[in-house]
Amino acid sequence: MTNPVLKALGRPFRLGIIGGAPPSMIGPVHRVAATMDQRFALVAGMLSSRAERSRTEGLAIGLPEARCYGSVEEFIAKERARDDGVEALAIITPNDSHAPYLKLALAAGLDVMIEKPLCNELGEALELRDLAISSGCAVAVTHTYSGYPMVREMRARCLAGEIGALRLVQIEYLAGGLATAVELDADADLRWRLKPERSGPSLVLGDIGTHAHHLVSFVTGQPFERVSADVGTMVPGRKVHDIAQVRFRLADGTRGQLEVSNAAAGMSNHVRLRVYGEKGHMEWQHGRHNELAIASLDGEVRTISGGQPMLTTDAQHSSRLMRPGHPEGLQEAVANLYCGLADMMLLRRNCATSGGSMLVPTIDDGVAGLAFVTACLESSKRDGSVVRLAN
Amino acid sequence: MTNPVLKALGRPFRLGIIGGAPPSMIGPVHRVAATMDQRFALVAGMLSSRAERSRTEGLAIGLPEARCYGSVEEFIAKERARDDGVEALAIITPNDSHAPYLKLALAAGLDVMIEKPLCNELGEALELRDLAISSGCAVAVTHTYSGYPMVREMRARCLAGEIGALRLVQIEYLAGGLATAVELDADADLRWRLKPERSGPSLVLGDIGTHAHHLVSFVTGQPFERVSADVGTMVPGRKVHDIAQVRFRLADGTRGQLEVSNAAAGMSNHVRLRVYGEKGHMEWQHGRHNELAIASLDGEVRTISGGQPMLTTDAQHSSRLMRPGHPEGLQEAVANLYCGLADMMLLRRNCATSGGSMLVPTIDDGVAGLAFVTACLESSKRDGSVVRLAN
Amino acid sequence: MTNPVLKALGRPFRLGIIGGAPPSMIGPVHRVAATMDQRFALVAGMLSSRAERSRTEGLAIGLPEARCYGSVEEFIAKERARDDGVEALAIITPNDSHAPYLKLALAAGLDVMIEKPLCNELGEALELRDLAISSGCAVAVTHTYSGYPMVREMRARCLAGEIGALRLVQIEYLAGGLATAVELDADADLRWRLKPERSGPSLVLGDIGTHAHHLVSFVTGQPFERVSADVGTMVPGRKVHDIAQVRFRLADGTRGQLEVSNAAAGMSNHVRLRVYGEKGHMEWQHGRHNELAIASLDGEVRTISGGQPMLTTDAQHSSRLMRPGHPEGLQEAVANLYCGLADMMLLRRNCATSGGSMLVPTIDDGVAGLAFVTACLESSKRDGSVVRLAN
Amino acid sequence: MTNPVLKALGRPFRLGIIGGAPPSMIGPVHRVAATMDQRFALVAGMLSSRAERSRTEGLAIGLPEARCYGSVEEFIAKERARDDGVEALAIITPNDSHAPYLKLALAAGLDVMIEKPLCNELGEALELRDLAISSGCAVAVTHTYSGYPMVREMRARCLAGEIGALRLVQIEYLAGGLATAVELDADADLRWRLKPERSGPSLVLGDIGTHAHHLVSFVTGQPFERVSADVGTMVPGRKVHDIAQVRFRLADGTRGQLEVSNAAAGMSNHVRLRVYGEKGHMEWQHGRHNELAIASLDGEVRTISGGQPMLTTDAQHSSRLMRPGHPEGLQEAVANLYCGLADMMLLRRNCATSGGSMLVPTIDDGVAGLAFVTACLESSKRDGSVVRLAN
Repeated sequence: MTNPVLKALGRPFRLGIIGGAPPSMIGPVHRVAATMDQRFALVAGMLSSRAERSRTEGLAIGLPEARCYGSVEEFIAKERARDDGVEALAIITPNDSHAPYLKLALAAGLDVMIEKPLCNELGEALELRDLAISSGCAVAVTHTYSGYPMVREMRARCLAGEIGALRLVQIEYLAGGLATAVELDADADLRWRLKPERSGPSLVLGDIGTHAHHLVSFVTGQPFERVSADVGTMVPGRKVHDIAQVRFRLADGTRGQLEVSNAAAGMSNHVRLRVYGEKGHMEWQHGRHNELAIASLDGEVRTISGGQPMLTTDAQHSSRLMRPGHPEGLQEAVANLYCGLADMMLLRRNCATSGGSMLVPTIDDGVAGLAFVTACLESSKRDGSVVRLAN
Repeated sequence: MTNPVLKALGRPFRLGIIGGAPPSMIGPVHRVAATMDQRFALVAGMLSSRAERSRTEGLAIGLPEARCYGSVEEFIAKERARDDGVEALAIITPNDSHAPYLKLALAAGLDVMIEKPLCNELGEALELRDLAISSGCAVAVTHTYSGYPMVREMRARCLAGEIGALRLVQIEYLAGGLATAVELDADADLRWRLKPERSGPSLVLGDIGTHAHHLVSFVTGQPFERVSADVGTMVPGRKVHDIAQVRFRLADGTRGQLEVSNAAAGMSNHVRLRVYGEKGHMEWQHGRHNELAIASLDGEVRTISGGQPMLTTDAQHSSRLMRPGHPEGLQEAVANLYCGLADMMLLRRNCATSGGSMLVPTIDDGVAGLAFVTACLESSKRDGSVVRLAN
Repeated sequence: MTNPVLKALGRPFRLGIIGGAPPSMIGPVHRVAATMDQRFALVAGMLSSRAERSRTEGLAIGLPEARCYGSVEEFIAKERARDDGVEALAIITPNDSHAPYLKLALAAGLDVMIEKPLCNELGEALELRDLAISSGCAVAVTHTYSGYPMVREMRARCLAGEIGALRLVQIEYLAGGLATAVELDADADLRWRLKPERSGPSLVLGDIGTHAHHLVSFVTGQPFERVSADVGTMVPGRKVHDIAQVRFRLADGTRGQLEVSNAAAGMSNHVRLRVYGEKGHMEWQHGRHNELAIASLDGEVRTISGGQPMLTTDAQHSSRLMRPGHPEGLQEAVANLYCGLADMMLLRRNCATSGGSMLVPTIDDGVAGLAFVTACLESSKRDGSVVRLAN
Repeated sequence: MTNPVLKALGRPFRLGIIGGAPPSMIGPVHRVAATMDQRFALVAGMLSSRAERSRTEGLAIGLPEARCYGSVEEFIAKERARDDGVEALAIITPNDSHAPYLKLALAAGLDVMIEKPLCNELGEALELRDLAISSGCAVAVTHTYSGYPMVREMRARCLAGEIGALRLVQIEYLAGGLATAVELDADADLRWRLKPERSGPSLVLGDIGTHAHHLVSFVTGQPFERVSADVGTMVPGRKVHDIAQVRFRLADGTRGQLEVSNAAAGMSNHVRLRVYGEKGHMEWQHGRHNELAIASLDGEVRTISGGQPMLTTDAQHSSRLMRPGHPEGLQEAVANLYCGLADMMLLRRNCATSGGSMLVPTIDDGVAGLAFVTACLESSKRDGSVVRLAN
């Protein structure tokens, strides 16, 4: 793969990161993913909102002391004052800080990678979208699963009509981290999630429901039209939602079923998507993310895998190990999103790109996620009544 | 395995069969299953409701010409007149004939194996149950999946509390036979199903929804309490239902999700049941019916298989090939139901049994299935509103 | 499926059985399999070589007391004296009795189903073949795996050239029943196997090695040409072989690898066959016997399953449940061999058959198995030197 | 994970790379892997042996022009002249250049990561080992598979006696890249492999056979003692080996079977290792590298996965994504080897390490690989006679 950033600029984009100190799992993932293809170089950071900790953890990952900041305001001010200041910001902090940090970044004209959910309220999301548009900044949202090559393959085949008109979608995202009453002894990374004021109006919907929602729209090319949902709590005494069961219709009338829980005992971040059409169906699951199964009407199932020659260019361009049987993982999926962000940034700068920008989730996807969360909560409050999504 | 029927009577029970001429798939299955363990001997039949065809097809499976009948009335009258007349009847005809044939059988004091759904209307089902009770006859309903050894293993472990208090159930039954507009050129076995007046108010719910419903209650030991359903049609122009998406709560409050379709392109009679509790979950799927997967809280998955020494007696007694790695199939599952019916018949006759009678679906399960269908249809008509099941 | 036996004779062939009293696993299997398609009716038996036990066990499976015999000589004499005497004999006794019993059967003009291995010595096998030829009797050998529909599918596709010229074969048959020193407390069914004078010169080769050998030749259509083998014992103190590792070449030069053990701890009758050609490979495994995987050069894997419409007639005709997703098992595989035997018997009697006779393993396959065992033992004695098979 | 290099030095080790220009697949893998954990920074390179190409490709991956070299001699001389010259060298060039380049590196006192096979001849390997010892330099060999967390888990459990005394090992490494006569139109990366003078005396053994050999010894802790091999060519007209079938015994007497081919049509870098002991067996396969299956004597199979809490520290420390269900891939496996090399380098410098040095393949493993290749070739020449490995 040629590297369009190096080609255009002669150097990677300069990236700063907000959040991701231990025990965050996604901190190291973002750092590896952003730099894997040399489209970004990590040059500054505020790993923690506590200044001393930010300094220590920044040094521990090799940042220069002078560029380990204690607040976002300081971060932006000092970086703007440098000739070699950051051009982009990765925001991977708790949900309630997404909106304020994103506003600061956009005001400073920085391009942004932001973790999902975009924010905690739909109104706020719409406001952020307006700010992004007026700023002209590129904003990518970390809907990781859309970065896997075989998910992109599924999308490409679905949109090309390989299984004909769509009829049914099934998605489930089941994790087990909250299957027990971890409320009392959660580590820091979990603790903020268990506080509704930080994680938002519905932990399960914000945390993984928006992933499932995005994955469906990404693969089918269809926005959600309406939902009937039951959102609640399975573990006794819990104050946040840990289960959502949602029936939905897409804009083209396709029926669907979405089930997400982070209290599904024994499940390890299991995501499975099936899309049925007139002529067959396709299935992808996270546990075997390098594979895509395509079933024909007569029940024959073809399994294709990452790196094989029959893949579409969307999948080929999303893979570093160009031969079959050489597994990639989550870090490469996130790296693909960073490549997309870099391509968006090149577009802004009128440079040629690799074309990946069209596949990266943007702030529009972030807004759609909040509209989905909002509609599900309203439906659930009304005992499962059908609710249309706001546009 | 000792054979309690041979032990008690010195001979198998005498069985007659109603229905099952080609191209019926279940005709041969019932005949092999009923006789596999020598608890029944097939001695008479009305394979078709057309007399000449009934004779030809009866001869083709080795029945004596004199016991190939052209109507149920003739069947019962002539068999009652014999010293060696049938003791039990298998009714495997189209759905709309279940109720009238069952009434005739009960009136004649015959024990019965009847295909699901018990009948087409809840009111009729309740009436049949009353008749069964007053007649004292044994009635088993062919909910095949509950006959698989590893489903029985799953039930035994679930009821023994292996995964703790239940939290969530997911069941899907997806078949592809109706994925295309087969209405015009369906074979005889399919043709009657496509006529609502024959297959009942909801093809998909009667045909496979009742299987899914029974499987959930069988394994969890819990009746359904309420449902929110969307029942409809995916293939354009179709007059019968081919999809049902149902959220439910069991009597103990456990949440659940049931999705059934016979228009899921590329699916081959796929049934998958997952039950989640406090301490882990269990999963069974039809495509690997000899296996049961048990996941613990930490994500470790144990897979146990038919014939292995750690199985419960419920599974051990439901298996003929007592060593692991020797696969059984659908016919053995149905044979297990016939063993249960034979045990019910022995109980009536005050003979000792093998204990299988407690596992065989009875007319109560048939009634519960109709209550489920009825509630789903009502909920769907009311746009997914929650509906409680009639008791 | 039409039943050619019923069509030709108006009744099933009359079958007697030698062996199969509890705790034999294959006793019930043969009885169910033989009668499943009504091509045979079980009318007489010598379930044990002890007369009293033979009577008790015969009664327990429903045989008339008068036809429960205490010796094969008595069996044959008394049955020959009847108008309705047996026409065929199933010999499922310990290995060392195969040859004498088969001789008696052939001398009486009876057609035979005999368990593998045909006998314990190659010289004896050749003699038995001569006797069979001169008697004109049909002899089928129970190489069960060749009865599975998807194995027959694999053979049909392999012979039709779907993967081009063959290059490599891998077969493994791994079981765990002898993984521990079961010698002291083995049940009756296992006990005789652990005595070399009963089970033959190499337990593992006779018991499962001949299955693996036959499966390779059956699917590829190629006899074995030469072997290099290491045959031995893994469990300390054991007197019989429990492991054989064999490299081989087929007649057309195809390379191969065969590994069989019944002391592979944790394995449950695992059989896996892969055949590679110029254009791809095919894989079948017993644990998913209803599936066949076909990989193309680019790594795409197609999985086809029992009952699907694209199957060859060999597979279609070997399946009772003609729709996909309805699993069959071991009993049906053995039943397919009995159908083949019945077809051979019809051929002898100049009656039309279903064509299955060409797929059933015959005494020639039994002889080839002994030639394989003999060559492997000689190679192993000579430290793995290459040994050609006797013809 | 703390980063012991950053902790000890305050900066990553400086790394140079020899080889890896497009279309090399392993070039990008080594570059990402080496820098992923910030234990190395890539500062100089000779990506191609043609100076102009080395410059172009070096720039394309972001190296400064002054440190893109045209020969290894120039590379080493110029880097030694710098204060900030490279401390370690990654040699990922064609096989025939391994020995000369490694000699230059050792002479310059550089620590080395070198691709397998260590070199093409056993005598040369022994000489290289002597040079490495006398130089004191750390040498790691890229036996990638030993870097996967679940392979390390398998080793830890095997050495801890979880399945008791070993009895049998099965390994297969099957790839399909050479299944057709690619000789004429191979790309550059493949072309040199097809020339025996470059790829060594046996392509298949050097390329993937040494991987399989190392994996067995790594997991069991046992060196190979003797082999019986058939090494040859399946594709007509080919001048290099593409298949090797090897029976072996380990030092403790454990039997084994190794089968490797890069002409197995339809296979995508499939590696599967099974180790059987008295109490069960364990299985790992590359296609599901995040899983380890452990079967007990009774046939129950436990599947454990990367990130789960019950893993040993060897696996825990080899994983970046510390929660289950977050897949890693090949790059992380190679990164684990680089961490091991960094630990070896810290040890040399009397710094504390993370302990990973004990798991990284060293030059001793490289030598053992060559001894294995040599013994197999000799055995094959002598028609499969048993040959002991040189020590």
